[in-house]
Amino acid sequence: MEAALLEPVKKGTHQLDYLFQPRSIAIIGASQKELSIGNVIIKNLVHYGYTGNIYPINPKMDEIRGIKAYPSIADVPGEIDLAHVIIPSKMVPQAIEECGKKGIKAVIINSAGFSEMGEEGIALQKEFLAIAKEYGIRIFGPNCQGIINTDPEYRAYCDFTFTFPKPGHISIAALSGGVGAFIMQSLFDLEIGMRLYASNGNACDVSIPDVIEYYGEDEQTKAIILYTEGLSNPLEFMEVAKKVTKKKPILAMKAGRTEEGAKAAASHTGSLAGVDISTELIFEKTGILAFNNEEELCQVAMAFATQPFPKGNRVGIITNTGGPAVIATDELVNSGLQLPPLSDRAKAILHETMLPEATIGNPIDVVATGGGKHYRSAMDVLMEEDTIDSIFINFVTAPFTDTNEVARNIVEVSQLRKKPIVCNFMTNMSLERFQETAKILKDGGVPCYSFPTTAAKALGALYRYGKTRSREIGLPKEFSDINSKVAEISLMQAKKEGLSYLPADRVYDILAAYGIPVAKWWLANDTEEAVNAAGNIGYPVVLKAESATLVHKSDKGGVIINLKTAEEVRAAAEKMKDSFGAKGLKLLVQQFLPGGKELIAGVSTKAGLGHLVMFGLGGIYVEVLKDVVFKIAPVTEVEAGEMLSSIKAAKLLEGVRGEKGINKEKVIDIIQRISKLVTDFPEIKEMDMNPIIALGDQVFAVDARIKID
Amino acid sequence: MEAALLEPVKKGTHQLDYLFQPRSIAIIGASQKELSIGNVIIKNLVHYGYTGNIYPINPKMDEIRGIKAYPSIADVPGEIDLAHVIIPSKMVPQAIEECGKKGIKAVIINSAGFSEMGEEGIALQKEFLAIAKEYGIRIFGPNCQGIINTDPEYRAYCDFTFTFPKPGHISIAALSGGVGAFIMQSLFDLEIGMRLYASNGNACDVSIPDVIEYYGEDEQTKAIILYTEGLSNPLEFMEVAKKVTKKKPILAMKAGRTEEGAKAAASHTGSLAGVDISTELIFEKTGILAFNNEEELCQVAMAFATQPFPKGNRVGIITNTGGPAVIATDELVNSGLQLPPLSDRAKAILHETMLPEATIGNPIDVVATGGGKHYRSAMDVLMEEDTIDSIFINFVTAPFTDTNEVARNIVEVSQLRKKPIVCNFMTNMSLERFQETAKILKDGGVPCYSFPTTAAKALGALYRYGKTRSREIGLPKEFSDINSKVAEISLMQAKKEGLSYLPADRVYDILAAYGIPVAKWWLANDTEEAVNAAGNIGYPVVLKAESATLVHKSDKGGVIINLKTAEEVRAAAEKMKDSFGAKGLKLLVQQFLPGGKELIAGVSTKAGLGHLVMFGLGGIYVEVLKDVVFKIAPVTEVEAGEMLSSIKAAKLLEGVRGEKGINKEKVIDIIQRISKLVTDFPEIKEMDMNPIIALGDQVFAVDARIKID
Repeated sequence: MEAALLEPVKKGTHQLDYLFQPRSIAIIGASQKELSIGNVIIKNLVHYGYTGNIYPINPKMDEIRGIKAYPSIADVPGEIDLAHVIIPSKMVPQAIEECGKKGIKAVIINSAGFSEMGEEGIALQKEFLAIAKEYGIRIFGPNCQGIINTDPEYRAYCDFTFTFPKPGHISIAALSGGVGAFIMQSLFDLEIGMRLYASNGNACDVSIPDVIEYYGEDEQTKAIILYTEGLSNPLEFMEVAKKVTKKKPILAMKAGRTEEGAKAAASHTGSLAGVDISTELIFEKTGILAFNNEEELCQVAMAFATQPFPKGNRVGIITNTGGPAVIATDELVNSGLQLPPLSDRAKAILHETMLPEATIGNPIDVVATGGGKHYRSAMDVLMEEDTIDSIFINFVTAPFTDTNEVARNIVEVSQLRKKPIVCNFMTNMSLERFQETAKILKDGGVPCYSFPTTAAKALGALYRYGKTRSREIGLPKEFSDINSKVAEISLMQAKKEGLSYLPADRVYDILAAYGIPVAKWWLANDTEEAVNAAGNIGYPVVLKAESATLVHKSDKGGVIINLKTAEEVRAAAEKMKDSFGAKGLKLLVQQFLPGGKELIAGVSTKAGLGHLVMFGLGGIYVEVLKDVVFKIAPVTEVEAGEMLSSIKAAKLLEGVRGEKGINKEKVIDIIQRISKLVTDFPEIKEMDMNPIIALGDQVFAVDARIKID
Repeated sequence: MEAALLEPVKKGTHQLDYLFQPRSIAIIGASQKELSIGNVIIKNLVHYGYTGNIYPINPKMDEIRGIKAYPSIADVPGEIDLAHVIIPSKMVPQAIEECGKKGIKAVIINSAGFSEMGEEGIALQKEFLAIAKEYGIRIFGPNCQGIINTDPEYRAYCDFTFTFPKPGHISIAALSGGVGAFIMQSLFDLEIGMRLYASNGNACDVSIPDVIEYYGEDEQTKAIILYTEGLSNPLEFMEVAKKVTKKKPILAMKAGRTEEGAKAAASHTGSLAGVDISTELIFEKTGILAFNNEEELCQVAMAFATQPFPKGNRVGIITNTGGPAVIATDELVNSGLQLPPLSDRAKAILHETMLPEATIGNPIDVVATGGGKHYRSAMDVLMEEDTIDSIFINFVTAPFTDTNEVARNIVEVSQLRKKPIVCNFMTNMSLERFQETAKILKDGGVPCYSFPTTAAKALGALYRYGKTRSREIGLPKEFSDINSKVAEISLMQAKKEGLSYLPADRVYDILAAYGIPVAKWWLANDTEEAVNAAGNIGYPVVLKAESATLVHKSDKGGVIINLKTAEEVRAAAEKMKDSFGAKGLKLLVQQFLPGGKELIAGVSTKAGLGHLVMFGLGGIYVEVLKDVVFKIAPVTEVEAGEMLSSIKAAKLLEGVRGEKGINKEKVIDIIQRISKLVTDFPEIKEMDMNPIIALGDQVFAVDARIKID
């Protein structure tokens, strides 16, 4: 059969349109062999009703699956938007060259045998990429499944899997085809439509950020599902994700969260994934909703496909049976939602409209014999309540009610799209009459769940996105009192000297230049100098023995705190001389703050991402309770505030048991200054301020360490 | 139609057999009205193929749904095992009387209008209960759904719901019919069979413990699902649950875990449920597996219906696609499972049998083109590995493999029942060929899940039960050095005096009598007596101002610690006299332990349950971090040990940052002695030891408080 030639549609400016909206597709490596990828892709395109031209390419065949085949790309009469490449890896560069000559702008390489296979494969990948670049071709893959566009205008099923979704508003991006496919399957099983699908395997050119950005601009995509086992270019990803999440939700799952999981991920992708917290920090910073459970993610997506986002966290429950409302309440509350009491107005209406045995409160129990008009009245009332932002419905199909009537009422109210509605719909779907009820609800766009907890999680996620989208973290603060030159010179000097850790005095100089308060200190050569220094610093002080050979000095009496007089300093200094010998011993005299709280702040670096800033309470809080939080630099004032409030022992910062609290603004300022320092000087690899001593308005670092490249 | 008279089967000794294995059922309040309960129950019995006689009772009808009706119970010619009562509540006592006269042994009262409706209903309930007792009738309900027995010998669907399960091995117990029904529905949707079902509403006689005990003795019940919103008789429940969980798993969900959820539960059951931690403690103590998610519970039950329990926590993964194995690994590890490396023997075999592109490790990736023989070899190898206790399979139905062959191999190995297997089966069930594959797996008893995380949770739960079942907490210790007489007299005296809190000296006497170490102390009347006392106690000491009018004494200088000499005691005493006035002031001198850790232990009472023993670290750990654990008394040595190791800051007990740890055995001993004390004297309502000071071998209570009835 000779395919009719369609005029190529006028393209927008986006080159990925050739990938996602192709008007003609060539299959290089098309095959007559059943179940081979080169055959299945043609079969799938035909089966799914692809609206464009299909050009099987095979030098030995005249037709494949009844479609005229061509010996080469050059022989194809019309224009080609997209080519699938399913041939042995060594032949791929040549094929890309031919695609280039034909003017093809997008290629999906399904073939494996590239970067996932070591040296030789990496070389091949580089080779065809260079050719692609020359011709301006975008490469999708290699070693990948492909893309799907369910838009009736295209129906491009450029993939070898076996699930054929109906059009919808959720788009999926997943490197891993296995996971991408079962997420698509899950949406299919849940009867949620899908919009676009992309699983790009080795992702040598078109990246996940490229895909997400494209989805962000696709009007019909209302929510994006992302599966990842790690991000190859975190900064690029963050930039895109930040923009997209302001427009539409990204629901994401990152696997490889445990050490063992990361190992499994590394063995399957060949990447050097390690357990790290950075992906979840990236999700947090960019407003992506993170999930640890892919089933929950898919279930939640159903609500995102049709429901508006709630303005706040106040939910009203309507139920016709008690137990499921209890279960729902537990989970809603765990998700941060509240159940406000009903207004007198609402109660008065409901006393008129409900059955006598109904419970009028929040939850509203219309009881099992309650019908459509009872549900309707309860919904109408909640839609009018100023104190209610969303509605949770439990609907068990009691055999003695007109369940279709109930469903129709739920749909009618839901379609006002005034407040989001989720429905826990408990029924027996093997009974025809309830299938009809279910169809009314589903066709009406009401997200229906089989379990109250699952439905509650969905509403919780809608709320979470609503909150995330409106969260403004602001921009990093600009400081007018910073002298970056001092830091620049110190760091340059250290690099010249080949140092890894900066000497203490330079560290303190840099901190001072960045307005980070440091305990007053003096490094004394002998006892009397120490006593003088203490006088200058002001009592009380701490005395520390400093010597190249001395480690774990605090265990050995090398640190004596809270010295209140010259005599005490002198005695302490003499004692240290006795203990450690006078030779090479220096005495560090430092300001001391009795009763001060130990805080810590620090910075570490993640390849490709930059700096992570850490804050927590020092001592056993960090060592035993691991009570620390991280944020990706640059850290804004809002974020620094969140760091203080999100540690488990946050209340300690306020002061408990009659203790004085700390000046939180000062600590928030210090965190931002640390962030500014490492952002200004990426060569700082690690930084540690442990402890920072704080009590009331007094806040200063006592020990600090800076490590450079 | 005249029903044929069956001979009543010979009954066992259990009276609930009349309820769960009835050979004849009367429906008092049978009705011709479609959708009425008195009609639906007859319809359900017939529809489900009930094997016994059905006797509709209605004075105005000759037949109902084609079955001969009788004007009264007395008119029924044969024996009746079980009666449904579906008539207005006021007529129920009379009906029970008639049942008694007929010799009926079990009655399900579906009618509402009893204890859930206030005073009048409560009186009615009492009235019919008294009659039932007289005739030896067990009452199920009232205000309930009923029971279901799927056994082909009975097929007793004594319930008005609409889901007709196939026979199986999971039995369900739920007060709430709404939740019970959707759990049953969920098993039905998952194609898991069900054995017995009971939803007993007001539960005025046959209780949840009765039902659980019955299920425990039912051979065909392999696992029990329990839903509760609170336990009316916790002690009875615990006694039964302890016995049953040794034989078979109970998977339980308690709703009303949040304050709001508890409120919703109270409004629907009329009970006075409050948020408490006691249900979860009961679950823990009795070896019940607790769930917070009913969907997860039902999914997990599928594995419990067919799989043996793993001997340990070591799992081997077989997969044919990478991503889902990563997801599974994360969740398995979170559930406490480990992925040991394969032995050299195993690797050698797999290198022979696997495809060249397979990954040989744990996970074993047989790759998408791997077929039945590859899965088989991988399973055989893992079954032989001594270091593997269970097998997790990811099986995506790749279109280019014989998926039925893979399924058959999984079934064959699974049916050896050597090690548990769960399968994450990722497919498109709308395609016929994969339906067949699914059927092979399901018919073969392989628990199949659609998501890797869900499958992993199921395997995690199997492991959790295996561990729980073998956990031996032992018996409470008997102490030979306890003088309970001292405590008895002190408590009797206090009661006589009408005291609520015991005076400090009596508290210390009681603690001493129970071998609980207390700081040495002396209540001095003046400074010199205090100095003498300090000498006798031994330095250092703490001095506390004691006066009836003095509260928050530590904030006002009324507590001075670490006094090391007579002079320091004298100075401190004089200062207190200055501050608080000499009049009425007493000086409590107490042993002091510098650097000692503050612990707390305490006891509270739960109505119907008895004492909860609490342990934690004192000070900010309890006040800010809420780092305390509870156990139900009596607490055994094993449990006391678990209390020490399960606080978040457990590591602090070992000593960190160069500090000395504490003698944990001594603390474990103290916890058991506290448990013994309150068990011996239930009149103790509250007890507080805050702090207990501990450092190395020195452990003693400093402040203690006992509150009685």
